[in-house]
Amino acid sequence: MITLYAAYNVPFNGKGLVRDFRVLWALEELGLPYACHWMDATKGEQKLDPNRSINPFGKIPSLTDGELKLFESGAIIHYLYEKAGKLPSDAVTRTQLLQWMFAALNTLEMPFIELLRWDVFWEGRPGRDVQYPELMEACKTRLADLERALGSKPYLLGETFGPADILMTSTLDYGKHKPEIFVNVPGVRAYLERVKARPAFKRAMDKHLSGPSAIAA
Amino acid sequence: MITLYAAYNVPFNGKGLVRDFRVLWALEELGLPYACHWMDATKGEQKLDPNRSINPFGKIPSLTDGELKLFESGAIIHYLYEKAGKLPSDAVTRTQLLQWMFAALNTLEMPFIELLRWDVFWEGRPGRDVQYPELMEACKTRLADLERALGSKPYLLGETFGPADILMTSTLDYGKHKPEIFVNVPGVRAYLERVKARPAFKRAMDKHLSGPSAIAA
Repeated sequence: MITLYAAYNVPFNGKGLVRDFRVLWALEELGLPYACHWMDATKGEQKLDPNRSINPFGKIPSLTDGELKLFESGAIIHYLYEKAGKLPSDAVTRTQLLQWMFAALNTLEMPFIELLRWDVFWEGRPGRDVQYPELMEACKTRLADLERALGSKPYLLGETFGPADILMTSTLDYGKHKPEIFVNVPGVRAYLERVKARPAFKRAMDKHLSGPSAIAA
Repeated sequence: MITLYAAYNVPFNGKGLVRDFRVLWALEELGLPYACHWMDATKGEQKLDPNRSINPFGKIPSLTDGELKLFESGAIIHYLYEKAGKLPSDAVTRTQLLQWMFAALNTLEMPFIELLRWDVFWEGRPGRDVQYPELMEACKTRLADLERALGSKPYLLGETFGPADILMTSTLDYGKHKPEIFVNVPGVRAYLERVKARPAFKRAMDKHLSGPSAIAA
């Protein structure tokens, strides 16, 4: 049985923006049965056992599946797609899948999560006048590059939605409070709308918003 | 034929600290034949073709292997180990490998690269008095967590050195100018010494230091 370790009461309006949402979304896409172990973030429960014994960094998400203990949203989602037999069948496409998963969690997530931090946690901090405009530019540049890379493809790997799209679009959503950075990337905007129209996205978001009162599939 | 797209003249003393080094190291570990396409970072050559047509974000490293074009150091190194037949043979260990690769490139790299930025590029910036002590703490906390996770294992996955160790230790090296953050983690220090004693690490570092005058294997 799969158990997702997820957090509620995150210390800001982070519903749909914390990394456990990505795993909920993947589970809903794949139709795998699972349970949620909800942890109260205001009490830092994610930093304690049982989560700490799964995830040495005391972060979310973590996941157990029988004897297997797993952390890092990218690795968890890759595992779930593999378990469901839904990884690409050819090696080159699997390599390109990893490429886009790493791009989402490194190249894109770094500036986007920093932007969110400045807006949510660091509003009045010194240095904002220098750091913030640079971050806005970094996000816009990454988005313009992504726009070109997407081209006319509906999803990062072409016709088929998959794990890289979950990671990429949930990362881009860290900037959803700043619509101005998306003004010049209509293709990225359409991509975001396309994935958010998926029934599994909506089911996962409902469960994420419900938190510990959510009923697992 | 494998061609690594790497940069020289990086705009700081970044030898051994830029991400193309990781791929050089993997290539030397695996003994795969390769060529280097060196790009002058002071001229921003990595942002132009031919690199741009491989890597939509204009970053390093990129790699070509026949028809395959690939970017993101994590994906490239995973591909190289797969090509060499050196990925773990069982699915659980391969999943744990991805877990530690993502941990290196997300959970660890975020604070460590930020620390490097503040020390190398942002020395006199406003806001340092608030941001910098927090970053130091974040790096120390991650290191303490990593110390516990490593335990008595020589490498992240146990007895066998692999791609996750390349990514993790090259990321930790972003903090090598701050030895004080490593004071309380003797296991991590020993881990770093262990991997840097590897002949392939030394060969890769020599080539990285030599830049465009380096002779590919």
